[in-house]
Amino acid sequence: MKFIVKKKCASSRARLGELVTNHGTIETPVFMPVGTLGSVKAVTPEEARDAGVEIILANTYHLYLRPGHALIEGLGGLHRFMNWPGPILTDSGGFQTLSLSKLRTISPEGVTFRSHLDGSTHFLGPAKAMEIQKSLGSDITMTLDECAPAGASHDYVRNSVRLTEQWARRCLDERKDDSQALFGIVQGGIYPDLRDLSARGLVRLGFDGYAIGGLAIGEDTRIREQIVRLTREFLPDEKPAYLMGVGTPEDIIESVKMGLDMFDCVLPTRGARNGMLFTKTGKLIIKHSRYAQDDSPIEEDCGCYTCSRYSRAYLRHLYLSREILASTLNTIHNLHYYSHLLSGIRQAIKEDRLAEFSHDFYARRVENRDQSEAESL
Amino acid sequence: MKFIVKKKCASSRARLGELVTNHGTIETPVFMPVGTLGSVKAVTPEEARDAGVEIILANTYHLYLRPGHALIEGLGGLHRFMNWPGPILTDSGGFQTLSLSKLRTISPEGVTFRSHLDGSTHFLGPAKAMEIQKSLGSDITMTLDECAPAGASHDYVRNSVRLTEQWARRCLDERKDDSQALFGIVQGGIYPDLRDLSARGLVRLGFDGYAIGGLAIGEDTRIREQIVRLTREFLPDEKPAYLMGVGTPEDIIESVKMGLDMFDCVLPTRGARNGMLFTKTGKLIIKHSRYAQDDSPIEEDCGCYTCSRYSRAYLRHLYLSREILASTLNTIHNLHYYSHLLSGIRQAIKEDRLAEFSHDFYARRVENRDQSEAESL
Repeated sequence: MKFIVKKKCASSRARLGELVTNHGTIETPVFMPVGTLGSVKAVTPEEARDAGVEIILANTYHLYLRPGHALIEGLGGLHRFMNWPGPILTDSGGFQTLSLSKLRTISPEGVTFRSHLDGSTHFLGPAKAMEIQKSLGSDITMTLDECAPAGASHDYVRNSVRLTEQWARRCLDERKDDSQALFGIVQGGIYPDLRDLSARGLVRLGFDGYAIGGLAIGEDTRIREQIVRLTREFLPDEKPAYLMGVGTPEDIIESVKMGLDMFDCVLPTRGARNGMLFTKTGKLIIKHSRYAQDDSPIEEDCGCYTCSRYSRAYLRHLYLSREILASTLNTIHNLHYYSHLLSGIRQAIKEDRLAEFSHDFYARRVENRDQSEAESL
Repeated sequence: MKFIVKKKCASSRARLGELVTNHGTIETPVFMPVGTLGSVKAVTPEEARDAGVEIILANTYHLYLRPGHALIEGLGGLHRFMNWPGPILTDSGGFQTLSLSKLRTISPEGVTFRSHLDGSTHFLGPAKAMEIQKSLGSDITMTLDECAPAGASHDYVRNSVRLTEQWARRCLDERKDDSQALFGIVQGGIYPDLRDLSARGLVRLGFDGYAIGGLAIGEDTRIREQIVRLTREFLPDEKPAYLMGVGTPEDIIESVKMGLDMFDCVLPTRGARNGMLFTKTGKLIIKHSRYAQDDSPIEEDCGCYTCSRYSRAYLRHLYLSREILASTLNTIHNLHYYSHLLSGIRQAIKEDRLAEFSHDFYARRVENRDQSEAESL
């Protein structure tokens, strides 16, 4: 994998980059929709591609449990299995042992956890995390990390940072295939000194890129922004920086300005399935009765498949009737929204007008009727 | 609407026809997938079209309850609402008052029933059934009928036939828009004399086409075939004959030979969502462990989107993981199977080789491992 910084923003730390992977070259900043189990939920790969998606994230934890990485390897790897020709990033599974598993025991060797599917016990160490990602054949792999729970103490998080560094070193050692990029994950919770410690340790080891992990798990937004900003400063300019699990359109714009290049989040896809649609003026909650007879599309000037063909009234009807097509059409729109947002950001960096782009973005978010209802979804 | 018989089969009563509707001309025999609530479940209109679908059926009962026919009319009719440019046939709602409603009371004026959604009480008479179908703007409308329950006595069914004829007459009187075709529905249960009575009455009234209703509700297959065969004989050759709610590929081939032109059934779409796939050799139950590592498509020589891109192993994984894409990909395949079957039948009639086509069809249905499991779905 190669990463080239093509242009730097004059007014912020944002940059336009190029990521050359085994499955194509993409520009950054980029958003990666989540394809947990080998499917971006509710859409075909072609629908995702047509909505502007260029790279997706798949989950090691999920694919290891179901259908199993050996099975996917036997069928030619994840790209072929799921019919996705573009780049794929896989996480290491560390995060899901925290967020999904009923029980996790952490030792220096790795994580013992219980499957959220059937309660069976599994062990995930650095070697296993690398083996699984090798089998999946992803373009970008991640080191196994320990994501400390929200509110963990300084002592807890310091140990977690040490362990994450040890595991990262072992992941480097275990890497069998240099054509797969490997990113280190900075932990350190909400503690600036531990973020510093974690970042320095990983940079010393040397990775193809660096991720900021352990955030977006319930901490205050302003604290998260401070941690992202200072952590980014510890990372080398010539490598891609990936903010894991983030986030809202606002989060992404602000993080881009801090120099972040890559993002992933379930928000556009999960939100779509829950009837929450992204628009330039804010969120639109499709079930609301005010859309019952609304013949306009989700957004007038949106060029997506859904907005070119369907009214809010139809989308509301499908959603209330629990039609599968509701999830598909809403997902296409939200994926397009995110892709379009990121391509707008990239264009703005190219043309040295990111500050205006950002100003316009916030100016359009006028008082939006659905915004407060959206918060509860 | 115009119907032209273009060719008659030499070896059976099958015929090749052309149905000219407000939304395009299609050839018969034709299968109509069910788009109950204004969506062929799990696929976009383009996916249905690409799978060979040319005409769909939508349900008056469902659309009346949700979102309401007036709303759809206000938004330009059902074609525009659901983005389906081809012909649409709507049923009259009579059947669902039997199959879905918790309570139905039948009077000479119509049916009083309770909504299966919220228990609210509604009245559906001939005028209302025509009003709803007018609002929806379907190309082919159906008269309101009383579908007698399975096992109903001769006395019960005789009354039901009389009522169905009275309602059919009132539907003709209430028809406001001659550009919408209107089909009469023959009832009469499993009683030959009542089928005769019902058919003669309707033919005297004169409709654009005739449907055989009140079957596929639990009666024995051989009895159903006898009733279809004899009922078909009572119907005029120059009008399209539609067998409602039927059926399996075998049912369709046999019914085509009896001179039936149109079919609808939830089997391909509902089956797809339950992991039951149609193939030339019979049914394939995708969840079975024998497909866990099977890299082949559902059918080797199938040209559908799904078979061109996905393995049985992937489809099994999606199905077991309850991914929405499982329903989409399976539905595309089953719709293609049915479309392809019907286009094969039409081609065979054109080339005077329906008997061989039928022979080949059955010959391929060798002992199929999944067949017995499929019966329980």
